[in-house]
Amino acid sequence: MRYVIDFSYSGANFSGYQSQPNLRTVQNEIEKVLKMINNNKEVKIHSSGRTDAKVNALHQIAHFDFNVDITPYKLKGALNSYLPDDIYINDVFIKDESFHARYSVKSKEYEYKINMGNYNPIERDFVYQYCNILDVENIKVATKYFIGTHDFTTFICAEDKKEDKVRTIYDIKVSIENDILSVVFIGNGFMKYQVRNMVGLLIRVGENREDPKNIPFLFEKKDRRVIYKTAPACGLTLLKVNY
Amino acid sequence: MRYVIDFSYSGANFSGYQSQPNLRTVQNEIEKVLKMINNNKEVKIHSSGRTDAKVNALHQIAHFDFNVDITPYKLKGALNSYLPDDIYINDVFIKDESFHARYSVKSKEYEYKINMGNYNPIERDFVYQYCNILDVENIKVATKYFIGTHDFTTFICAEDKKEDKVRTIYDIKVSIENDILSVVFIGNGFMKYQVRNMVGLLIRVGENREDPKNIPFLFEKKDRRVIYKTAPACGLTLLKVNY
Repeated sequence: MRYVIDFSYSGANFSGYQSQPNLRTVQNEIEKVLKMINNNKEVKIHSSGRTDAKVNALHQIAHFDFNVDITPYKLKGALNSYLPDDIYINDVFIKDESFHARYSVKSKEYEYKINMGNYNPIERDFVYQYCNILDVENIKVATKYFIGTHDFTTFICAEDKKEDKVRTIYDIKVSIENDILSVVFIGNGFMKYQVRNMVGLLIRVGENREDPKNIPFLFEKKDRRVIYKTAPACGLTLLKVNY
Repeated sequence: MRYVIDFSYSGANFSGYQSQPNLRTVQNEIEKVLKMINNNKEVKIHSSGRTDAKVNALHQIAHFDFNVDITPYKLKGALNSYLPDDIYINDVFIKDESFHARYSVKSKEYEYKINMGNYNPIERDFVYQYCNILDVENIKVATKYFIGTHDFTTFICAEDKKEDKVRTIYDIKVSIENDILSVVFIGNGFMKYQVRNMVGLLIRVGENREDPKNIPFLFEKKDRRVIYKTAPACGLTLLKVNY
C-alpha cells in the first residue's frame, strides 16, 4: 500500500531533511520510527524534495510503501507518539501507486520571513533577524521581475549540475505584519538555494543598493556571484506542496 | 551610576530567570557578561521579578549599579556582542537611584498563547500546543470574574508563603488570530504560577467543564486543587513592565 504523509518540522535542530549518516535529519527520524512499526524492516520514504539545514516546513509531503495492516488514523497516532517534538504528522492518506511525492508535484509554496524591528530571540528559529528597515515598495517592484518562466542559473547553488535550470514562478506575495516582512513564492519547483538567493537579492533591493530594473541583466549573467548574499536558512519555511 | 536594561529572552533553554548554581539562567548569563565588562568584579542585577523555566520575555526590566564609564549605547552593544543568541538587550538607560526595577513597578503585562489548531513544531517554544477547539465566548465571559481586586490564594503556587495575596487585575484581552488564542493580562503584580493557573481554569471553562459563574466560589475556596491544571510555562510571555 502506498501511504502519503503530510508533516511539519522545525528545522532548527536538524542537519536538513535528507538522510545523512551520523547526522540528525528529518528523514532519518521518520524512517527510524517507520522501521520500528514495520517489524524492524527498513522503510524508505520519498519526499517532495529536500530542505536545507535549519529550513522549516508546515506541510511537507512524502510517500512510502508499507505492508503493515494499519489505518491512516492509527498510523498517524503511532508515528506522532514516537517522533520527537520537532516533527509532527498532520495527516496520513492512502494513494494509488501512480502517486509519487516528488514526480507528481504541480507547484510548491515557500515563505521567507524577515524581521525589520528589534532582534527577537523568541522567533529567531523561523524569522531572519535582519533588524533594519527595508524599502518594501522597492522590493515589491523587484518581485515582478521574478514572476514567469526564467533560467534561474544566477540564483542557484554554483555546484548544482542539473541540466535544466528553467523554472516558472506563478506568483510572489509580499506582506507586512508588525515588523515582519513576509515573501511567499509560488512556483512549479525551486532548486537548491534558489529562494534564499532571490531573497538575498530582494534584501539588496530593499537596501536600495540594487535597482530592480537591473534584475533582467542579472538573469543573463548566469553567475551566482552577482547576488552577493544568500539569505539565512532559518527564515525559510516550506508552506505547501500542490499535486 | 544606576543602569536600567530592557531585554528579551526565549525561555526554552533556560532554567528560569533567577540565578541558580550550576544551571543556565538568564540572570547568570547577563551577570557573567557584566562581570567581564566590569574588570572581573561581580555585578548583581535586580529584575522586575523572576520568570519560571521556559517562560519567555519581550521587555523584561532590570537595574544594576555600575561604575564603568560607558555610554548606554556602547553598553548595549557590548552586552549584545557577548550574550548568547537567546537573550537580547533592547535598550539601556541611566536612571537616578530612586528607580528600582522591582519596587517601582506600576503594572505588568503577560500574554498566554494557546494553539487550537494542528500541532505546530515551529512555534512550540512560545505557544502552548493544546490542539483542540475551545469555547472562546465562554472564556471571554470567565475573564470578567478575574478583573478587579481579589485574594488570589486559589490561583497560586501552594508553597507560596507571601502574606499578602491580594492583587488587582486591570484588564484581560482575549483575541484570536488564525488558530492561536491570545489572552493578555494586565495587573499590578502577579504571583508565582498565578497567570498559568488562571489560564488552566480558562481552558477548563473553554472545554465547558467549568461554569464561569462558579469562579467567585473558587476564589473563596483558597485552595489550589480546585483549579486542576496549571497551564504549561512555554505559552507564557512577559510582554511589558510599566513604571
